[in-house]
Amino acid sequence: MSLVIVGSMAFDGIETPFGKVDKIVGGAATYIGLCASYFTDNIGLVSVLGNDFDMGYLQLLQDKGIDIEGVEIKPSGKTFFWKGKYHNDLNTRDTLVTELNVLGEFDPKLPDNYKNADFVMLGNLSPGVQSSVIRQIVRKPKLIAMDTMNFWMDIAMGDLKETISMVDVLIINDEEARQLSGEYSLVKAARIIQEMGPRFLIIKKGEHGALLFGEHQVFFAPALPLEEVFDPTGAGDTFAGGFMGFLAKTKDISFENMKRAIIYGSAMASFCVEQFGTRRLEKLSLAEIDHRIGKFVELVRFDV
Amino acid sequence: MSLVIVGSMAFDGIETPFGKVDKIVGGAATYIGLCASYFTDNIGLVSVLGNDFDMGYLQLLQDKGIDIEGVEIKPSGKTFFWKGKYHNDLNTRDTLVTELNVLGEFDPKLPDNYKNADFVMLGNLSPGVQSSVIRQIVRKPKLIAMDTMNFWMDIAMGDLKETISMVDVLIINDEEARQLSGEYSLVKAARIIQEMGPRFLIIKKGEHGALLFGEHQVFFAPALPLEEVFDPTGAGDTFAGGFMGFLAKTKDISFENMKRAIIYGSAMASFCVEQFGTRRLEKLSLAEIDHRIGKFVELVRFDV
Repeated sequence: MSLVIVGSMAFDGIETPFGKVDKIVGGAATYIGLCASYFTDNIGLVSVLGNDFDMGYLQLLQDKGIDIEGVEIKPSGKTFFWKGKYHNDLNTRDTLVTELNVLGEFDPKLPDNYKNADFVMLGNLSPGVQSSVIRQIVRKPKLIAMDTMNFWMDIAMGDLKETISMVDVLIINDEEARQLSGEYSLVKAARIIQEMGPRFLIIKKGEHGALLFGEHQVFFAPALPLEEVFDPTGAGDTFAGGFMGFLAKTKDISFENMKRAIIYGSAMASFCVEQFGTRRLEKLSLAEIDHRIGKFVELVRFDV
Repeated sequence: MSLVIVGSMAFDGIETPFGKVDKIVGGAATYIGLCASYFTDNIGLVSVLGNDFDMGYLQLLQDKGIDIEGVEIKPSGKTFFWKGKYHNDLNTRDTLVTELNVLGEFDPKLPDNYKNADFVMLGNLSPGVQSSVIRQIVRKPKLIAMDTMNFWMDIAMGDLKETISMVDVLIINDEEARQLSGEYSLVKAARIIQEMGPRFLIIKKGEHGALLFGEHQVFFAPALPLEEVFDPTGAGDTFAGGFMGFLAKTKDISFENMKRAIIYGSAMASFCVEQFGTRRLEKLSLAEIDHRIGKFVELVRFDV
């Protein structure tokens, strides 16, 4: 398997200043997988669903070339549900409902042909679940990346640090980097976090772009200045999906290529926010992606 | 005159989490002039001082090649004084004292040899004072740029819009752009502001970099991720000084060259914040500046 993605699949209820949906497919693994499918085949998804999930959506993922053998369906349970409302600036949101349902007992089992994955992306899950996945891998992957969130820093910092020590790339946002490190300066925070294990750290700053810290290098990718952000849900996961999908496609984990991967992740995230949920990501063309990449080049290119 | 700079000169009292100074030379014109002096000679300063100003500091400006014929000294008054305290994140500050003193009646008179300036930079002042300067110019400059602040939007929006309509470049921060336009999205805000007159708009986002909007183009320059920001005072003015100084040096106002100018402005601002007030800007070498520019190139350069 080229890329194994582990994470939640969900139903989301979303309210933004521009509209509202009561129930739409979401979840980290969904966004990551859908986005990565534009770059590479041979993607395996590991997740858990209840009896209420939309089977048509699973078919859509398969039509994109995603293997779903790792997606367990629990006939007696319901799918994870999250509901949130964005504030007017779209940078902050209130979580209104979190029903873990089958995600609460998620105990991922990698199918045999996932255990030799070249690339592994661990979406935000409890650090214990994330590390249990790493332990099932039989051949060292080229790269393991993980996402996490402040919630796990609050209640399971020990487990979290152990899991972080097992991965190559940690992908978090600026607030999480500050909480994890105890440092306000992102440069200092990065050094402290990299000492926890990961060779690479990506700090996402939402509309302010993202920073990639390597062993002795830093790269900054802007976010595309957008006229309108319709729904930010899933933008971070989409970013991670573009990053990992591009690396899985190119099989090159040099810093130079990671820079490109971050630009691709940023471009994909800029699509994601244009419509509710995964809608925009379901129907992209490679020409649209290329054109958007061109916008990033224009945005930052200068000669001295 | 190559570059005429109009703005406040001041004493500042500054408290940051790292230290405190009771009285140090500051003011927009000081930062802009000092910074621009690394790029071009033939700079004229227009400002007003009280009888208490540090004459040694005026000499320092002259030693940097800055003409101070336009600096009026009022023997009966005191110099503008500002005192502020930065919060721990250094992104926000409280103004503790504002004593306008001689700045309250500032009625700038351009010396004759300033009236044919190629480049004019209007630091933050009342819009009426800014426009009175523009009216004294006898030969249309290559470029007039201005800064302003939310205070003038609150109390003198009509005057402000009139002044904005007279300039080529408006340089403001993101909050100011939102207030001036009434739009949260910076892309929409930019369009509305450019319709007010300026062909170019620079939106400064502090540690998140700066955006340059041209007629049909956008450029984004990051801020350098810094280990420590010691004192942010004057960073925005230093940015403007680097931008205008570079343009005055190169005499090229194409969008491509403005991009370079913004990178130079950003590099100079990254020096400014390393020490209190203008201290770091007083003693820079061209080699240090070149080296810092190299850091910006490394930070954003990628190939697709």
